[in-house]
Amino acid sequence: MPGGLLTDLYELNMAVSYLRRGMRDRATFSLFVRHLPPERGFLVAAGLEPCLAFLETFGFEDRELAYLREGLGFSAEAADARKGLRFTGDVWAIPEGQIVFAGEPLLEVTAPLPEAQVVETFLLNQVTFQTTVASKAARCRVAARDRDIVDFAFRRTHGVEAAMAVARTSAMVGFAATSNVEAARREGLAVAGTMAHSFVEAFATEAEAFRAFAQDFPDRTTFLVDTYDTMQGVRNAIRVISELGLSAHLGIRLDSGDLDGLSREARSLLDDHGLTHVRIFASGGLDELDIERLVSAGAPIDAFGVGTRMGVSADAPFLDTAYKIVAVGSRPVAKLSPGKASSPGAKQVFRHARFAGDVVGLREEAPPEGTSALLRPAMIGGVRTFSSEPLSESRRRFEADLASLPATARRLNDPVPVPVRESDRLRELARSVRLRAGGSPAGD
Amino acid sequence: MPGGLLTDLYELNMAVSYLRRGMRDRATFSLFVRHLPPERGFLVAAGLEPCLAFLETFGFEDRELAYLREGLGFSAEAADARKGLRFTGDVWAIPEGQIVFAGEPLLEVTAPLPEAQVVETFLLNQVTFQTTVASKAARCRVAARDRDIVDFAFRRTHGVEAAMAVARTSAMVGFAATSNVEAARREGLAVAGTMAHSFVEAFATEAEAFRAFAQDFPDRTTFLVDTYDTMQGVRNAIRVISELGLSAHLGIRLDSGDLDGLSREARSLLDDHGLTHVRIFASGGLDELDIERLVSAGAPIDAFGVGTRMGVSADAPFLDTAYKIVAVGSRPVAKLSPGKASSPGAKQVFRHARFAGDVVGLREEAPPEGTSALLRPAMIGGVRTFSSEPLSESRRRFEADLASLPATARRLNDPVPVPVRESDRLRELARSVRLRAGGSPAGD
Repeated sequence: MPGGLLTDLYELNMAVSYLRRGMRDRATFSLFVRHLPPERGFLVAAGLEPCLAFLETFGFEDRELAYLREGLGFSAEAADARKGLRFTGDVWAIPEGQIVFAGEPLLEVTAPLPEAQVVETFLLNQVTFQTTVASKAARCRVAARDRDIVDFAFRRTHGVEAAMAVARTSAMVGFAATSNVEAARREGLAVAGTMAHSFVEAFATEAEAFRAFAQDFPDRTTFLVDTYDTMQGVRNAIRVISELGLSAHLGIRLDSGDLDGLSREARSLLDDHGLTHVRIFASGGLDELDIERLVSAGAPIDAFGVGTRMGVSADAPFLDTAYKIVAVGSRPVAKLSPGKASSPGAKQVFRHARFAGDVVGLREEAPPEGTSALLRPAMIGGVRTFSSEPLSESRRRFEADLASLPATARRLNDPVPVPVRESDRLRELARSVRLRAGGSPAGD
Repeated sequence: MPGGLLTDLYELNMAVSYLRRGMRDRATFSLFVRHLPPERGFLVAAGLEPCLAFLETFGFEDRELAYLREGLGFSAEAADARKGLRFTGDVWAIPEGQIVFAGEPLLEVTAPLPEAQVVETFLLNQVTFQTTVASKAARCRVAARDRDIVDFAFRRTHGVEAAMAVARTSAMVGFAATSNVEAARREGLAVAGTMAHSFVEAFATEAEAFRAFAQDFPDRTTFLVDTYDTMQGVRNAIRVISELGLSAHLGIRLDSGDLDGLSREARSLLDDHGLTHVRIFASGGLDELDIERLVSAGAPIDAFGVGTRMGVSADAPFLDTAYKIVAVGSRPVAKLSPGKASSPGAKQVFRHARFAGDVVGLREEAPPEGTSALLRPAMIGGVRTFSSEPLSESRRRFEADLASLPATARRLNDPVPVPVRESDRLRELARSVRLRAGGSPAGD
């Protein structure tokens, strides 16, 4: 699966030009988020793993080369120049699970110009989407506090690949399980699920459906109680639990209606029957704001299932990411377009303890006193410097960050992101590049 | 790639129960959109093709069966029951490219209960996403009127699979080309693209970059003119065109700033130099409303590139789809949950000419006078009844529908969807099912 065609045509055009002209200078590109969406106080870095896997095997298969010649009319010379093209560059990146902010490079590529250029589309695609979803899922996690939260998004994500990434990134930010069986298999995640309304409808009565399911899954039964009348559904569940003498891993699931009111009614009915160990699970078009309302109101809900709105990041389904060239050889460069200006040079993010403020500086700078550097070498000369990390590692990183993130950045409404400033050296460099550019490149 | 695990756990649970109990009655499930998002006057059906491809090869590989036993703790008996599970059912569906509305079944599956249940997640995933994006792209198409429009979404779609679907469905609704090279190769699409700002920055001056690119692609050069100063960029392009004596397939691309004003300035500058054949291409975070504004204002833009906002359907990144059981054996069933009620029986959509109104009725009904039936058999007994159709076919279907769609449903703001009513027979059946259910299934 080399995938050299997993890119926009203009990347291939540019690579042709660079190769023809022997422009194989090493260039550095910086991938960052320009602005946070309105209701985001922080982001969670994600998507590095698939980028590294892609870069490791990057190249052109024969059928891809044939398409360059026959489909796109590239000259045999131009197509052949790609034959042996591999990714031989370096990648510095912020590891997955780390909390990050706008203006901070999440990933930097330094490679011969044609290589660094042609991988742009794939890297942007993966980092943008996975960071978008990890950040949305993290908001759900914040809202749920100590309640469990489960990924139910598969049926409405943007394809199957998206569903796999949603399961993976939501696990990264502390989700307890996913309903997505293939994702659970691939990533070793806990998997959760019970029955659908159609199951209840496939039997003559609700009680009969409950009885059948409990007989088939006596060690993990959650009764979906809202197909007909919710409280009658709870009574049917109680009857079946007692009839069959069930005891372990029991739950009921509310999937519609007034979840706050119904959960209280259901809780007291269950408790009245001595069923204090039966958990209440809530789902049905929930997002982080619904969850926060229910948790704040003290609704006796033990676990939330969140699907679509989390899985497509419904209120902010993309991030304003960019992949900008910041150096060619030893020459720092910058883009000056109105509203899209970028800042020059390979960078580093220096973080003060307890999120007292981040500093974006030059990679070569010494870390300011009391800060740690977030970008690490992930690939040197086309070879990974560490193997893929287990999800538990990125999850631990996220948990540690979340625990010390200021409440103002954590909160769901009107959050205030942690301030990010540029280092003095970076500002000086940017000023000199702008001065130098002011007169020449456009006008010459 | 059987993919039996590409599903939610609860589907597998239910299938286990059905198989154990010999509940292999043929059931019918109906996939439809409950409500249109606020600013949608119509939808474009899409996603059928990947569903049929999936159903054709559906099954469980050995490693998938092993996971059922070892990962999920399913009994050997339950896992074995799946070993030979194939999809043996029927699919009726509205073909891709057809304009559709809320409440109309896009696809109906009739199959033994365990089979029909376990494919739910995948079918919902594909139809929801592809219909979402096709519908958003169609709005861009409406806005662009007779101007060309190109898919630039790859870099910010929700993964690579999503990018392929975006290229395919946007071509279905009349996009002229895509920047996505692999999608173009797979689907035989026209591909478009020029250079990025980084290309301009990789040369000492803008003019030098333009010269190099034009030498390398003399038969298709589009100059990206806004890296430094846009009008100076246009002047540099004019100079290079004249220096090199270029003539065919020339363009300039504006990617930032006031596109209306800049396109007029650029047009008159080009025309002053006798370059009336140089096309003006505009891009940069555009959506259908931006395009409509520019086209209505008469901005001299020949082609638009639309990316992220189309590719993630930013204002409505999902549809409220459902996959509901409507019959078990010969018994019509319905769900009664508040706000989520469904209506019973296998259905058909009858359309009056010129979108005078749609009628959702029972599949067995005779079409009302002057209507045509939209759902067709796509698979019978697990075998496709037609092979995959070329994209030109679904595109032709879309064009024909769009041409007769009332202006009130076409318009981008406050659209009024075409009315959809239920047939008398469907309403009667629904009433009798509700009456029958009222007393019994919940209470028994």
